[in-house]
Amino acid sequence: MKKYTEMTQEELRSEYEALQKEYLKYSSEPLSLNMARGKPSPAQLDLSMPMMDVLDSKTVLNAEDGTDCRNYGVLDGIPEAKALFADMLGVTSENIIVYGNSSLNIMYDSVSRSYTHGVMGSTPWCKLPKIKWLCVVPGYDRHFKITEHFGFEMINIPMLPTGPDMDMVEALVNNDASVKGIWCVPKYSNPSGNSYSEETVKRLAALKPAAEDFRIYWDNAYAVHHLYEDKQDSLPEILSECAAAGNPDMVYEFASTSKISLPGSGVAVMASSVGNIADIKKSMTVQTIGHDKVNQLRHVRFFKNADGIAAHMKKHADILRPKFEIVDTVLREEIGELGIGTWTKPNGGYFVSFDSMPGCAKDIFNAAKKAGVTLTNAGAAFPYGIDPEDKNIRIAPSYPSDEEMKTAMHVFTLGVKLVSAEHMLH
Amino acid sequence: MKKYTEMTQEELRSEYEALQKEYLKYSSEPLSLNMARGKPSPAQLDLSMPMMDVLDSKTVLNAEDGTDCRNYGVLDGIPEAKALFADMLGVTSENIIVYGNSSLNIMYDSVSRSYTHGVMGSTPWCKLPKIKWLCVVPGYDRHFKITEHFGFEMINIPMLPTGPDMDMVEALVNNDASVKGIWCVPKYSNPSGNSYSEETVKRLAALKPAAEDFRIYWDNAYAVHHLYEDKQDSLPEILSECAAAGNPDMVYEFASTSKISLPGSGVAVMASSVGNIADIKKSMTVQTIGHDKVNQLRHVRFFKNADGIAAHMKKHADILRPKFEIVDTVLREEIGELGIGTWTKPNGGYFVSFDSMPGCAKDIFNAAKKAGVTLTNAGAAFPYGIDPEDKNIRIAPSYPSDEEMKTAMHVFTLGVKLVSAEHMLH
Repeated sequence: MKKYTEMTQEELRSEYEALQKEYLKYSSEPLSLNMARGKPSPAQLDLSMPMMDVLDSKTVLNAEDGTDCRNYGVLDGIPEAKALFADMLGVTSENIIVYGNSSLNIMYDSVSRSYTHGVMGSTPWCKLPKIKWLCVVPGYDRHFKITEHFGFEMINIPMLPTGPDMDMVEALVNNDASVKGIWCVPKYSNPSGNSYSEETVKRLAALKPAAEDFRIYWDNAYAVHHLYEDKQDSLPEILSECAAAGNPDMVYEFASTSKISLPGSGVAVMASSVGNIADIKKSMTVQTIGHDKVNQLRHVRFFKNADGIAAHMKKHADILRPKFEIVDTVLREEIGELGIGTWTKPNGGYFVSFDSMPGCAKDIFNAAKKAGVTLTNAGAAFPYGIDPEDKNIRIAPSYPSDEEMKTAMHVFTLGVKLVSAEHMLH
Repeated sequence: MKKYTEMTQEELRSEYEALQKEYLKYSSEPLSLNMARGKPSPAQLDLSMPMMDVLDSKTVLNAEDGTDCRNYGVLDGIPEAKALFADMLGVTSENIIVYGNSSLNIMYDSVSRSYTHGVMGSTPWCKLPKIKWLCVVPGYDRHFKITEHFGFEMINIPMLPTGPDMDMVEALVNNDASVKGIWCVPKYSNPSGNSYSEETVKRLAALKPAAEDFRIYWDNAYAVHHLYEDKQDSLPEILSECAAAGNPDMVYEFASTSKISLPGSGVAVMASSVGNIADIKKSMTVQTIGHDKVNQLRHVRFFKNADGIAAHMKKHADILRPKFEIVDTVLREEIGELGIGTWTKPNGGYFVSFDSMPGCAKDIFNAAKKAGVTLTNAGAAFPYGIDPEDKNIRIAPSYPSDEEMKTAMHVFTLGVKLVSAEHMLH
């Protein structure tokens, strides 16, 4: 098919009318399909149901050091849970704090603690006139909500195929002491699915921050979330990279089992330097007596080790992979070389990032919505919900069934074509 | 036996020497007994082991509104969990937020949120020059640690048999806008075990705070933790009392199942006005996607309703009651009318509060410690760990076995007598 940009006005108008006609079928009888969030599907949740049988009323709920996991105590996690996550993240147990069910909550608390009590003895951020934060865009909306909630000035850093634009990051971090952090999803990034290159990781680790309390917020949400066995992204381990570059305390790493076991009933962890861990525990010991050790034990006894997690993730991949392939196939078939959109084809994670022609994303979102396909809000992947070019749309293929995905993607691409044609006609 | 105060110096010296001799037996071969914290005993934890069988891999983990509890979502708790805790606390579901495993964490977060974002639109406390907080003493050390951590000035309010000294509370709250809160454990208070009188509750509800963002932090930790079937303390419901007095938003109530099901693996809740709940959710929705709904479901299916909780608490009482009676019996037998100590005899909760002669508590703590009996640090029940009269000691009878309690209490009373005699001889 001809590129839209190469069509005559007449050809474009006739295409537009044909699209309108087809669109009317959907908008007059809207579907009810949701591609808004990265929610695992029921089939994926079923994979973890055997976890419900791992502990029963006859089980001795003792940790390997003898701790009765049923009682109070253990601030930073039972030893075998620390070991499991250290194994998964390629660090050691002394780098790990095991928390409750939500890594987002750890991130919020980390920002909040720095705001109220500072970082390793630095001035609490609430006492400073201005805090700036770097946001790799498009990125994860819930990250940006946290820094917005605390009133920080958020600065957009473009996400390149290699990761954040490091020239820009270095210029800002190394020269402006009010820049206190950067949100990173280094692997199978939300929403592009791209991973940072080795060079990007090394340049991040080698930053020379103007602020002593600058921290990289390294949300390793998709550390083990591969789609393929033969195409897997891998990154240098960030804690050791930072240590080697003379910045041992520069990173807070976050992860969870939300998309491994059950979202909301999983286990979340932080990995950081021994110095940061000690600093964090000073507040944590005031905040809580400890997190849910029985659930930690349930996870350890189910997964056993990083190999057990990897084996489990293959089952997730078998369910997710066809959906990602449907996204790519429909996009190739329907949008292909029309010149009205580009998209990513990740090796893992939960998202595909689609870029329309500038100025079209909101209209595409609305067209899909009217036909009964809910997408993540256009602009959501940007601070303050503002996509400067109004072109990015996040596609979350995990929740709908394969059949639903085909329909949803057809409606989506119809919306893209319709809106693009309309924009070009005006 | 003669009161120590009525003994001659000679009689006292001979008593002291006899005590020393007996004490030497213990200090030369120390025991290893711990009465430091309000930890349930293994026998109590066993009561909740059937919870481990409530959900298995065949269970449909849907909430009553159809929500799949295994997936993301539901910020404030599944409907049946809200209903369970509303039932337990005598409020309605719209007053409830169900959280994670720790009510202490909710309290910390409430203080932290007020500090960073204010209360219902008021100035964030971090922007104010001074925050004062009322601490009913003796009280719960972990409460005081929170307000100490945020640098608030803590003001001691004596705990009377009827509850906090309300003349003092009214004078401070109603006249000083820098007073932003008060820590209360209204029922079977930590550590006295006393409950606030109806008049105290009504006077609290009728406060006319100088600060619009003053809140009563109502830690109803022992709401259903009775020791007796025929002697149970009951208090007016605080939310409705505040509403009736024209202060609908003045209270944050906290509770948890930590000492009902399993500490660390229970469910914690907050109860407050609809206005406060809406205000809190504005931050909470940034902080987390939601808490552990599977564990909420596990609790609801195990306990069913407030009657189910009450029936379960009777089993706890059957285990705890003998231990509290040992405490009282040994104290009566060993200290009795010697004039060197007084103590409480609560109808519920986890603690007995012992007052020695002024200036003796630290020495008693050390004497017990040297003989292998660990008590809560002397002074712990006061802000900054400073008991102005150095006389209060918290006794936590729950964890040791009955036999251990007898020995531990014997050693404790020996320490009380020894230290008292020593102080009177000098």
